[in-house]
Amino acid sequence: MTIEEKAGQLRSTWLGGSATGDDLAPHQHNLADKTPPWSELIGSGLGQLTRTFGSAPVTVAEGCATLARLQAELVAGNRFGIPAIAHEECLTGFMTLGATIFSAPLSWGATFDPGPVERMAAEIGTAMRLVGVHQGMAPVLDVTRDLRWGRTEETIGEDPYLVGTVGAAYVRGLQSAGVVATLKHFAGYSSSRAGRNAAPVSIGHRELSDVILPPFEMAVRDAGARSVMPSYSEIDGVPTGADAGILTDLLRDEWGFTGTVISDYYAVSFLELLHGVADGPAHAAALALAAGVDVELPGARCFGAPLVEAVRSGVVPEGLVDRAVTRVLRQKCELGLLDPDWRPDQVGGDVVDLDPPHVRDLARQIAEESVVLLSNGGTLPLPGDGRIAVVGPLADDIAGMLGCYTFPSHLGRNYPDMPVGVEIRTVWEALGAELPDARLTLTAGCGVDNQDRTGLADARSAAAGADVCVAVFGDRAGMFGSGTSGEGCDVADLRLPGIQEELLDALLDTGTPVVLVLLSGRPYALGRWADRLAAVVQAFFPGQEGAGAVAGVLSGRVTPSGRLPVSVPRQSGGQPGTYLTPKLGRHGEVSSVDPTPLFPFGHGLSYTTFAWDAGGDVPAEIETDGALTVEVTVRNVGDRAGADVVQLYLHDPVAQVTRPVVQLIGYAKVRLEPGEARTVGFRVHAELTSFTGRAGHRIVEPGDIELRLSASSADHRHTYRVRLVGPERKVGHDRQMTTEVTIV
Amino acid sequence: MTIEEKAGQLRSTWLGGSATGDDLAPHQHNLADKTPPWSELIGSGLGQLTRTFGSAPVTVAEGCATLARLQAELVAGNRFGIPAIAHEECLTGFMTLGATIFSAPLSWGATFDPGPVERMAAEIGTAMRLVGVHQGMAPVLDVTRDLRWGRTEETIGEDPYLVGTVGAAYVRGLQSAGVVATLKHFAGYSSSRAGRNAAPVSIGHRELSDVILPPFEMAVRDAGARSVMPSYSEIDGVPTGADAGILTDLLRDEWGFTGTVISDYYAVSFLELLHGVADGPAHAAALALAAGVDVELPGARCFGAPLVEAVRSGVVPEGLVDRAVTRVLRQKCELGLLDPDWRPDQVGGDVVDLDPPHVRDLARQIAEESVVLLSNGGTLPLPGDGRIAVVGPLADDIAGMLGCYTFPSHLGRNYPDMPVGVEIRTVWEALGAELPDARLTLTAGCGVDNQDRTGLADARSAAAGADVCVAVFGDRAGMFGSGTSGEGCDVADLRLPGIQEELLDALLDTGTPVVLVLLSGRPYALGRWADRLAAVVQAFFPGQEGAGAVAGVLSGRVTPSGRLPVSVPRQSGGQPGTYLTPKLGRHGEVSSVDPTPLFPFGHGLSYTTFAWDAGGDVPAEIETDGALTVEVTVRNVGDRAGADVVQLYLHDPVAQVTRPVVQLIGYAKVRLEPGEARTVGFRVHAELTSFTGRAGHRIVEPGDIELRLSASSADHRHTYRVRLVGPERKVGHDRQMTTEVTIV
Repeated sequence: MTIEEKAGQLRSTWLGGSATGDDLAPHQHNLADKTPPWSELIGSGLGQLTRTFGSAPVTVAEGCATLARLQAELVAGNRFGIPAIAHEECLTGFMTLGATIFSAPLSWGATFDPGPVERMAAEIGTAMRLVGVHQGMAPVLDVTRDLRWGRTEETIGEDPYLVGTVGAAYVRGLQSAGVVATLKHFAGYSSSRAGRNAAPVSIGHRELSDVILPPFEMAVRDAGARSVMPSYSEIDGVPTGADAGILTDLLRDEWGFTGTVISDYYAVSFLELLHGVADGPAHAAALALAAGVDVELPGARCFGAPLVEAVRSGVVPEGLVDRAVTRVLRQKCELGLLDPDWRPDQVGGDVVDLDPPHVRDLARQIAEESVVLLSNGGTLPLPGDGRIAVVGPLADDIAGMLGCYTFPSHLGRNYPDMPVGVEIRTVWEALGAELPDARLTLTAGCGVDNQDRTGLADARSAAAGADVCVAVFGDRAGMFGSGTSGEGCDVADLRLPGIQEELLDALLDTGTPVVLVLLSGRPYALGRWADRLAAVVQAFFPGQEGAGAVAGVLSGRVTPSGRLPVSVPRQSGGQPGTYLTPKLGRHGEVSSVDPTPLFPFGHGLSYTTFAWDAGGDVPAEIETDGALTVEVTVRNVGDRAGADVVQLYLHDPVAQVTRPVVQLIGYAKVRLEPGEARTVGFRVHAELTSFTGRAGHRIVEPGDIELRLSASSADHRHTYRVRLVGPERKVGHDRQMTTEVTIV
Repeated sequence: MTIEEKAGQLRSTWLGGSATGDDLAPHQHNLADKTPPWSELIGSGLGQLTRTFGSAPVTVAEGCATLARLQAELVAGNRFGIPAIAHEECLTGFMTLGATIFSAPLSWGATFDPGPVERMAAEIGTAMRLVGVHQGMAPVLDVTRDLRWGRTEETIGEDPYLVGTVGAAYVRGLQSAGVVATLKHFAGYSSSRAGRNAAPVSIGHRELSDVILPPFEMAVRDAGARSVMPSYSEIDGVPTGADAGILTDLLRDEWGFTGTVISDYYAVSFLELLHGVADGPAHAAALALAAGVDVELPGARCFGAPLVEAVRSGVVPEGLVDRAVTRVLRQKCELGLLDPDWRPDQVGGDVVDLDPPHVRDLARQIAEESVVLLSNGGTLPLPGDGRIAVVGPLADDIAGMLGCYTFPSHLGRNYPDMPVGVEIRTVWEALGAELPDARLTLTAGCGVDNQDRTGLADARSAAAGADVCVAVFGDRAGMFGSGTSGEGCDVADLRLPGIQEELLDALLDTGTPVVLVLLSGRPYALGRWADRLAAVVQAFFPGQEGAGAVAGVLSGRVTPSGRLPVSVPRQSGGQPGTYLTPKLGRHGEVSSVDPTPLFPFGHGLSYTTFAWDAGGDVPAEIETDGALTVEVTVRNVGDRAGADVVQLYLHDPVAQVTRPVVQLIGYAKVRLEPGEARTVGFRVHAELTSFTGRAGHRIVEPGDIELRLSASSADHRHTYRVRLVGPERKVGHDRQMTTEVTIV
């Protein structure tokens, strides 16, 4: 290969779904201006084709036809006949018009059940592969650290074990369909200053190793993820996209990763333009390539002509290019793109149904299992025949179902009249169907995020005249300020958007019991109303089947089983902070600010009642390379079927470094009919207690620990004290990272 | 020396100012329960005597008598006749009843002038030494990182160069009087999570090295500080009080520090009780001692019997004890405590005036030069004969003058009826004296921090009936929740305390021009009122002469010359964040949250006008070990005397790591009569551009830089572009850290 041909494999281009060749998609950022036109690009080949389906509203047939034509032109245009890897967004479903829209990741976390998530990802991958897409830009494995961050909705939660186990399930599912999963954003993105998108990250090696990295490690090692995307942000002055320590030494040399590292959109250019660590595109390319970035997305501003010239002039060693090309070609080989029988028109075309009934069923299941009942004074389930005032900006708006990486939200800024492509009900519609005999009224009261007070009086009247008020509040996801949640939609504090708090005050003032339903991309501070709300239901963005799930919980058809993957704060300030903190990060005598959340991580109620019987002998001590089993029998002592979530937390009272007060190391969702009992066993290896010690590497430290069978991170039901004996052990990438769960 | 005698030199006890021996001060924390009684302690000697003057309201005579008696008993009681080092708080003055109360440190920073601060510290030291105190627990060299932190008021500001130069001046002044200065809190304390006191610190090596450490390095190296106090907090899991990397490798081996490291109060015990890195007092002692802590304060819970036993049993090498004892005895030697003619009664007794006129004058000068005029639509100076409504909770309350380390505030929780000991006026009193012909009315309107709305209407009426309203708002300093600012008085957001915002709304609604005067320990978010306030004056806690300084600025007698040492935010959320950030920490397209402050670091107005003439040739390039001079002539073109502050900022457009957009590297306060002009010269060494590079050590990097002569961190008047040429240079502890300033 010539250097141009090699560099061709390291770059990409973003052509619209109806692209004829040289017409760039409307989202084409002006940074891509320097990307050569398509007719020039194809001569030297192309590493990736960027978002053929999800850049503009195109039908499946149009997208398939375009993709097939582009691939055909590309194969015909380059000497070796190598097609491009086509990638597409897929966080909450294949992000194209008409594909199933699943719950956003916080809802996956709320299910506390990786199984359905794995099946979901397999369905997403199947749809993508069928239409010729090879790589999905998901999952997001960032661990939530600051709820103000707009991308909180894209995370699975604030605990690395939950994020890692659920995220790994997603990877397994997607890749089982033959689609490459992309782990993002590697690493530290969620710890940006004040939760502002891409702001500098202040974090040390230990926090990075023990909180941020484990989900990536699990996804690479246990799930075999084949692609990784570096974070936009810097850590302590070093942009991760220019950090060989993370992208090569850690990811490849230590973890053994052999896939591709692809840049986030424009991230190579941002080394020059936003980080100021490069003096031009060639320098940016050199830094990224040397660090371990293999492919530039979504263009060729740096990895195009500037890289070629830099290699020619000897500034960049050609060996670095060869290293990246080898990885890209290996991935194409793995994907079958280099097979003799590969053909560009091997795509599904317009016969493909991207939202078939069995997939909708799966979306419904996940949505139902993700709804978290936070509090309930007895108002829920709703009576079937009362007067119910359905109020709030999201009561009759599908926006509350959709995360920012759904097709309508993601493109909504550019296409205000975006078609949705799938059938989505609102809570108002679904509740009417659930409660045919109830007398329901509908009043928005206010908008999600404006200052229009003209509807407040009507909403108040509606609530005053009802037996119960269902207030459907929350977010509208968008991009870069077009919404109240989502990428670039950060907030300065955790007050509900717009005048929703004012509306809530007005509703509560009526004296009518208010059930608050939150369809939101992040938790909001609810402390001000905690004692006055009749019930609180947190549903995050539950996807296209979300309205039925929420209405089902409200009506009682669905017994809620979700648990909080993120704490719900009491006060609107005081960020950042999650449950995962040493003692001095919690409330204490030394600070007047009490950060205790209103509802803790792991919390969630049910309509039935479970009794726990912690049984079995637990050894008083095990070796630092040993294991033990903790068992608990869960019995449904209520009168309706339901699912409980048993959580296992580690408490390490004394260690060589400060340790989280508690830390999740296992969980199990147990589905039980009335009267039924099942026994959950957690096989805990001592390596689950490991952490990064004073010397900077991960160890299992001898000493006392506690294992706590818990209903939440603040509700510990049974504690076992165990002594780890034997030598301090250094453990590495081959350590046990998950607790084996049995349910019998 | 026996091991008991050695350990005796490493511990302390806290005896009240009227102590008879075994009666512990009322503040004696219950952690000290295990401290042996005085009669036992003296047999083996004692390293330090803790706060004889500032623990309870005692007269100078009582304090002196007690201290002399304790020292006499101690000298008589131990074999070698070694007295203790007596230490006392002294941040804003010798913290005892009747001593001058100076401005709190934010005001020092606001003067942008180390000279008066050095003279202040010399006066503080003189008073302390005169009454037998050897060590002062100041200055605080923490660089503000999160304005929510209650101890923000104790910092000099958010810029390490300002903190370092002013802090070093304090050290020089205090030590010139023969009193040991104590640098606190070493290091990272100000970066605690969400600004909560002592919460975990997430910070990397580079940020620590380039932002947090330089003030300490300047104070150790350039000012010769003789004692250091570790921070209560942890950095990335390691409590600094147990971190040999910071307390020994860096402080002693790299920086060459030879003084003592003394624990913060109870901090050794906190290794066990709050950090969980020790399993008991002996373990805590072992960790602290090994890390480099020489003395436990304020008792002997860990360094007492537990340490002795640990040495006896071989757990702790006696060599570690010897190392610490050597340092303590060397310090006592330096202080003359081991001189043959040292006598315990060498103290001033009741003849000492701790608030003499010339010191009050100095306090007044600092207060006057620290008042920052943030905005002024022409309302200030106030007319001498108008109707002025003086309103606000601090209008006639001295609380607004006093930081939390003043005697009344510090002890106020324990002694509600604390005497003040010095004469302090309120703004109301001072303004009446300034404007004898004006018709002034006084209305509090509300309290500092309660919800009492009964006074709002009166305040509104008063404002409505006046020509101008002076609203005196802010904080009441206290400890651990007893105030709105101060140690342990953190906040969740930057809204004004109590119902002060409601009062401000009410005052503005009258249409009367409102001059907002803030007497506060931190800036508060003023964006909501920015366009409606007639003028804003930020005075922080200006000390006992503060009322006159504020009133003088209001009347026009004093031409304001203060500059902001901390940014004043626009919005109440969005913390942390200071001006010292790379581009992605500022406002940009990628986040919907705009953190741009309302008033930037370095900002401040005057009543006169200055014209700048940037003159002289600046070379286009210098070597990476070279220097250059930047000059500017400042002319007072107004009609009254005043002082301008010329600030010099560095901008480094491309570097191997991300760099702050701008960073202060020099400043000069220029006092000018009307029509007068003076030329300021900054001699900038290339080492002022140094930073911690990718390899982890400090370097001067070749390449282009900009030097910006500026009126604030956001108001750059003249920019010079200079190329640093030659090799990249590794620089260390011997580098140039300050820019030499000449004013001719």
